[in-house]
Amino acid sequence: MTSSIITLTTDFGSDGPYAAQMKGVILSMNPRATLVDITHAVPPQDIRAGALALLDATSRFPRDSIHIAVVDPGVGTDRGIVAAHLSGRYYVAPDNGLLSPLIGKAKDMQLVRVSDRQFWLPEVSNTFHGRDIMSPVAAHLSLGVPIDRFGPPLVDPVTLDWPLPTAEANQLSGQIIAADSFGNLITNISREDLPFSAPLSALHVSVGQRSLGHVISAYGQRDEGATVGLFGSNGRLEIAIVCGNALRDCGFRIGDGLCVSWSAGN
Amino acid sequence: MTSSIITLTTDFGSDGPYAAQMKGVILSMNPRATLVDITHAVPPQDIRAGALALLDATSRFPRDSIHIAVVDPGVGTDRGIVAAHLSGRYYVAPDNGLLSPLIGKAKDMQLVRVSDRQFWLPEVSNTFHGRDIMSPVAAHLSLGVPIDRFGPPLVDPVTLDWPLPTAEANQLSGQIIAADSFGNLITNISREDLPFSAPLSALHVSVGQRSLGHVISAYGQRDEGATVGLFGSNGRLEIAIVCGNALRDCGFRIGDGLCVSWSAGN
Amino acid sequence: MTSSIITLTTDFGSDGPYAAQMKGVILSMNPRATLVDITHAVPPQDIRAGALALLDATSRFPRDSIHIAVVDPGVGTDRGIVAAHLSGRYYVAPDNGLLSPLIGKAKDMQLVRVSDRQFWLPEVSNTFHGRDIMSPVAAHLSLGVPIDRFGPPLVDPVTLDWPLPTAEANQLSGQIIAADSFGNLITNISREDLPFSAPLSALHVSVGQRSLGHVISAYGQRDEGATVGLFGSNGRLEIAIVCGNALRDCGFRIGDGLCVSWSAGN
Repeated sequence: MTSSIITLTTDFGSDGPYAAQMKGVILSMNPRATLVDITHAVPPQDIRAGALALLDATSRFPRDSIHIAVVDPGVGTDRGIVAAHLSGRYYVAPDNGLLSPLIGKAKDMQLVRVSDRQFWLPEVSNTFHGRDIMSPVAAHLSLGVPIDRFGPPLVDPVTLDWPLPTAEANQLSGQIIAADSFGNLITNISREDLPFSAPLSALHVSVGQRSLGHVISAYGQRDEGATVGLFGSNGRLEIAIVCGNALRDCGFRIGDGLCVSWSAGN
Repeated sequence: MTSSIITLTTDFGSDGPYAAQMKGVILSMNPRATLVDITHAVPPQDIRAGALALLDATSRFPRDSIHIAVVDPGVGTDRGIVAAHLSGRYYVAPDNGLLSPLIGKAKDMQLVRVSDRQFWLPEVSNTFHGRDIMSPVAAHLSLGVPIDRFGPPLVDPVTLDWPLPTAEANQLSGQIIAADSFGNLITNISREDLPFSAPLSALHVSVGQRSLGHVISAYGQRDEGATVGLFGSNGRLEIAIVCGNALRDCGFRIGDGLCVSWSAGN
Repeated sequence: MTSSIITLTTDFGSDGPYAAQMKGVILSMNPRATLVDITHAVPPQDIRAGALALLDATSRFPRDSIHIAVVDPGVGTDRGIVAAHLSGRYYVAPDNGLLSPLIGKAKDMQLVRVSDRQFWLPEVSNTFHGRDIMSPVAAHLSLGVPIDRFGPPLVDPVTLDWPLPTAEANQLSGQIIAADSFGNLITNISREDLPFSAPLSALHVSVGQRSLGHVISAYGQRDEGATVGLFGSNGRLEIAIVCGNALRDCGFRIGDGLCVSWSAGN
């Protein structure tokens, strides 16, 4: 059973008309579809950033919602397209790792290699499979076509090289993996990666040689302009400047290592 | 009686996936909600600009529509959250002045301090009350929960320091308060602030020492490149460059004073 | 018979609240309308770019959908407003050439000069006819008002000076007419302009004095950083940099001439 909520996550830029072409295709097949943009500002061809956006946003949508993701540097080559049912939600995406973290977390899953052309647009371009293949597949899903009709099972999906934090005696080492629209730097360390439930004030953050003090629980706890570490709204440790833009002003970059440590007593 | 139209006004930036997380929460509770973005480009934490966007846009929406506003520098502190019924429309926002001009204009009003956690997400983050509190409250409103169920009456909402124009004998003094996406400079002088209904050609505009001539009624009345004053589509006096960008090119700034004067005869 | 799908194409910028004011007006008249943004990033007052976005995107929408286009440098002057029924879809736009390529291609058409004020907002501003005239006209169309009710037939719509490619013995000469959000340069040469169906590898592209080699069929056929010519997803020849931004980095500009040639044997 599917729903008529269909979301779009792409690297097309927020400005262009390409996403609207996908919406036109979907509405031509299912005029009752409810369309929601997750983001079109994934950095061009940045599969990791796209995977992160999908991971955080799609979990907020209802069961049976359908999520199209188009970050697709391999369009026009022989990379595959996957339709997936993961923990109760549907996904249609290039088989290039975009769904990899979602697949890694899924309690139940069904993966299909999209291959039956009867569900595609009659004319398929070489450069815009998001419109010509993924959108009509999603529309058919929303109309109740069972997922296994789109092609054979996909047994070996492409897996993203997703950096995981590493644990040592009294510390966890991770990495800055993305930035959000506020300039907050998102890391790969989540609350659940910590091996114990210490108070935040017992957790010390440093990026490279620079100490940021202990993890805070709200921006208001520190003065404007302070560089701080806190767990953001999706449970990930973030580096931020209070009332400022960390990406622009604190000198750290995506890829930089960071460390959360605590005293032996905890 | 409520409707299922829910709008979002935030300072998240047009690019990010945060607004989509709010939409996912709302659609999970009310899959029939009609979601409309008003803007996500309120300058970060600029409550005055957010209040202006709300004031101009929400008045265009139907009675009983529901408007969420998230410009929330105080998130995670003890600032309150307000649910309001103002002149027939519903609002959910931090109690930080965002609704202040709307409250000031409302013919009828009901204000509630949002406090009953049964209407929130089970897990509330410290940094994203827009998603975890305001979105589910709006969704419950759209499902017909009466506004007084969300908490006790709010008797003393935070009031914005909103500059008002000052009248003298033959002139009105005001201020540039914002810029729009065309670079037009929006002032706090509205047509209705003028003490009489003179023809526009009798009204002389100056910003600081610089005269812009009389108020015009359409861009086409002056040559390309001319700096002009005219009443914009929301009734406010605007400073614009014909076919150009006043914010970028005319040297005036938000906060600058301006003056509309007329001859004593009028 | 009309549908309730209404799209918006404007030059308001993606950030501002003006498009939302149009949506509020539409939803106040038809709360069941399905609203879709095509783009709000048409370069300010660039009618040609707006016409291109409309041409490519609206053809993807279902029959009877309604498309509002607001790129309107003449607002407030005596330029007219047109309501059109073109190849099964409805359009509402200033009569300034925005619909010109669509009218040129239409198999069947009905054009009306919008003039009956009973279908407009009671109060019409001088600067925002998109909200005050076009939105209510589109809403009335979506409610089933026949198009000929909005005014008298329009017999002589404004025609855009749209550059067409010119054919010579073994070549076609055209022009770069726009750029998309990836920085790909869009030309006025379409696949269907070629006088024969040669393999792409027989078609040689040059921009000014610079040869780009033969037309490719997918980005993956050339190395990262190569400047290439290929037919894009809307059938137009595009100049692109593989995994790069041609607008920024290849030195060509909108308006530059280009040439597709083939050997005499074909």
